Amino acid sequence: MSRIAYVNGRYVPFARAMVGVEDRGFQFADGVYEVCAIRGGALIDEAPHLARLERSLGELRMRAPVGSWQLGHIMRETVRLNRVREGLVYVQVTRGVARRDHGFPAVSVKPTLVVTARTLDFARYAALAGKGIAVVTRPEARWARCDIKSTGLLPNVLAKQAAREAGAFEAWFVDRDGFITEGASTTAWIVDANGVLRTRALDHAILPGVTRAEIVPFCRQLGVELSERAFSVEETRTAREAFISAASFGVLPVTRIDGNAVGDGKPGLITAKIGKLYWSSR
Amino acid sequence: MSRIAYVNGRYVPFARAMVGVEDRGFQFADGVYEVCAIRGGALIDEAPHLARLERSLGELRMRAPVGSWQLGHIMRETVRLNRVREGLVYVQVTRGVARRDHGFPAVSVKPTLVVTARTLDFARYAALAGKGIAVVTRPEARWARCDIKSTGLLPNVLAKQAAREAGAFEAWFVDRDGFITEGASTTAWIVDANGVLRTRALDHAILPGVTRAEIVPFCRQLGVELSERAFSVEETRTAREAFISAASFGVLPVTRIDGNAVGDGKPGLITAKIGKLYWSSR
Repeated sequence: MSRIAYVNGRYVPFARAMVGVEDRGFQFADGVYEVCAIRGGALIDEAPHLARLERSLGELRMRAPVGSWQLGHIMRETVRLNRVREGLVYVQVTRGVARRDHGFPAVSVKPTLVVTARTLDFARYAALAGKGIAVVTRPEARWARCDIKSTGLLPNVLAKQAAREAGAFEAWFVDRDGFITEGASTTAWIVDANGVLRTRALDHAILPGVTRAEIVPFCRQLGVELSERAFSVEETRTAREAFISAASFGVLPVTRIDGNAVGDGKPGLITAKIGKLYWSSR
Repeated sequence: MSRIAYVNGRYVPFARAMVGVEDRGFQFADGVYEVCAIRGGALIDEAPHLARLERSLGELRMRAPVGSWQLGHIMRETVRLNRVREGLVYVQVTRGVARRDHGFPAVSVKPTLVVTARTLDFARYAALAGKGIAVVTRPEARWARCDIKSTGLLPNVLAKQAAREAGAFEAWFVDRDGFITEGASTTAWIVDANGVLRTRALDHAILPGVTRAEIVPFCRQLGVELSERAFSVEETRTAREAFISAASFGVLPVTRIDGNAVGDGKPGLITAKIGKLYWSSR
């Protein structure tokens, strides 16, 4: 079966799923996106993803191409047409097609909307959850508004590639003060030397992770103390556990950071409990 | 006459000038570009623009879609087909189309190449050169590798838009130490209180401007002392002159910065001489 994509009002075969060369997403990274997991054919955390998309659009003063309700419908229809049971749905909105010029085009320009869906092998993540993943740290190189989920992802691309070449799954960015901001495409967490679960407080340096927000309430349930406070590279060296979170896989334990074992080098217990709770509550 | 664009080996009408929705330029800003001026039907500074494109590609370990000689030919052919005598030619290269994944795709993926050309009203710039333009300063918000001419231009878009809304032509980014890096799409220069021409030395914070490099040798010719040393916002307040440079217009005098007059508020003499020398030497 050939893949189907939604592009500006039409469901088309992938070979015809195209945007103009003067699309501002293509020429300026003047666009935003969301990725939702699909489990058993259903969208996971659809509402918070749509809410975040709306926030990103608002921060960039970009028009929504369709209402949230309609966008949800398009996402589900794209999933259905591609017969995806387990996978991801991808939504991208750009400021539309206009004669190239840095400033915003006239308000009458129609924003571009693209939705795609694809199958993902979640068994791969289950295997990674069993043994843990490796992370490398990289200097923070991104722009000042990482809270906006924009398609300006080149620094993320370079960091992810550097991680892979180092045999790692993810790269964690480190700010000028030595604190982890987040991963190239994931939220960063540790259980520190005092047993406190740590993740950076929301600011302009990190994306307000949807999975992050879903995890927060689990802490009370599990009796784990949570502190939304950035942690340093040094603190990762004495951490008992570490993990990453993202919409695509929920939670994955981190067992090596820059080649150093985290805790006893095995996936942590709190990590496992949070991961389990995350999927059981979906 | 409808516009013609070159897209991946073919010259096509603009309505059919499209790229796939999984083009990495569209999804990740994983692409680079160049803009050359066209005067009298001829490309201005073609060689240094092609050299910089090659450098950008190298920094991102991106394959060149065609050789430099062939790209020059495509650019000139695009100009010819669009019958542009006075205008711009735009070249964009991306890492190609691949299933969405942050890391680099397999080396076998063909890079995307798009070339467009359009007429530009240079008389508009002549008018601006006569009265000078206004600049506003904005906190530097871009990524750590602005020396790479990538399409990750969202912070530039936002700064340019902010400038326009403030009635200005350009925004100058200011780094954490209070020094100007460069404009949203131009190089920043002042003639300081001591009569020294100042522009930031090349580093990762600024694009190595082609027009900047062309201007440097004029200084000796004009007997102007040049110091490649960043200048602060405070130094702009006592500057005798200020200007911006870019491929599209050469040089434009800056007569207001954040609402304050530069020097006597009129376009500067050294600025005018450099601008004249730039075009007379093309």
